[in-house]
Amino acid sequence: MAENTKGVLIVLSGPSGVGKGTVCKELLARNPQVKLSVSATTRAPRPGEVEGISYFFKTKEEFKRMIDAGEFLEYMDVFGMNYYGTPRAYVEEQLALGNDILLEIDVKGAMNVKRIAPEAVLVFIAPPSMETLKARLVGRGTETEEAIARRTAEAAAEMQLLPKYDYMVVNDVLTDAVNEVETILAAERLRVDRCKDLAKFCKEA
Amino acid sequence: MAENTKGVLIVLSGPSGVGKGTVCKELLARNPQVKLSVSATTRAPRPGEVEGISYFFKTKEEFKRMIDAGEFLEYMDVFGMNYYGTPRAYVEEQLALGNDILLEIDVKGAMNVKRIAPEAVLVFIAPPSMETLKARLVGRGTETEEAIARRTAEAAAEMQLLPKYDYMVVNDVLTDAVNEVETILAAERLRVDRCKDLAKFCKEA
Repeated sequence: MAENTKGVLIVLSGPSGVGKGTVCKELLARNPQVKLSVSATTRAPRPGEVEGISYFFKTKEEFKRMIDAGEFLEYMDVFGMNYYGTPRAYVEEQLALGNDILLEIDVKGAMNVKRIAPEAVLVFIAPPSMETLKARLVGRGTETEEAIARRTAEAAAEMQLLPKYDYMVVNDVLTDAVNEVETILAAERLRVDRCKDLAKFCKEA
Repeated sequence: MAENTKGVLIVLSGPSGVGKGTVCKELLARNPQVKLSVSATTRAPRPGEVEGISYFFKTKEEFKRMIDAGEFLEYMDVFGMNYYGTPRAYVEEQLALGNDILLEIDVKGAMNVKRIAPEAVLVFIAPPSMETLKARLVGRGTETEEAIARRTAEAAAEMQLLPKYDYMVVNDVLTDAVNEVETILAAERLRVDRCKDLAKFCKEA
């Protein structure tokens, strides 16, 4: 019944260092019907970036008008310099076409999406243990001790939001984690409230 | 994290003739961790039936006391002769052990289970179309025209409850239908609210 099914808005998030970027990349590579959301931004286009594919490029005025009009599922202000956000209209268009839309965002953004779009499926990518997570942050070798301590504290705070998520996937072995996300997507597509012509299906009876 | 996960209470129902019995049988054969619920009944044990395995055998007085005490997830009174019901305590025990519990019941029973145990996962086994369902009812060849008309009308009424279910699985090809129920079970086991030691997991952080 795939053709009668709305797509799934799936949000992957979790603490920094948990490997959610790698999970997303592998998920997209394996599943052509899963699309990464196209963000809106106020930063200038870089060479080669295409409007509507790389980003929706907006002026600060346009972006603020969109915020006021409630046109974002979530947005953030990076260092007070530039805005980035997920336009609701684009996401709803893709879902209606039956495409699944993937958002890779932080836990704060995920909470916003759930508030505005309660049908969103929130997946928390968790580390096998906090020790593993600390080891991964240290292992990057690119950061000062102070930065590591700050990121570890942030990760611990982010873990507290786990109970607000729908699903938890432990990223121990990458392939297993991606398989589990795929299982979640497949099951969510069988949800009665994602069937577009349920009324017709019932009326047939 | 299977050992830290509560089992899933999965309810399969759907209109008569849809083949839900066959789906259940195949599901149980393939998945040893899925257990069929043991019902309580007031009918007399038949030769070879074992208390606590075949049924929990109860007197009418015991059964009525259990009804009054809210000890059933659902029950029914068959032709005013005998009672059959699903004891809540047995189901909860099995879920705590990490076993999935399967209930194959009619749509009325399913609605009762959802009311008493909101964490139950309701799967509606649907026919590919109402025409197929009618053809299957006729095809049994064991029933009068009148009985077929009555069953078809019942099935149509039952289809109306589809929007109250969590998932819909169309039973066209049996293997596909069973695969889909397995996918639902696998995803439900990844739900954050089924993780038994979430508090511990968060505290680690």
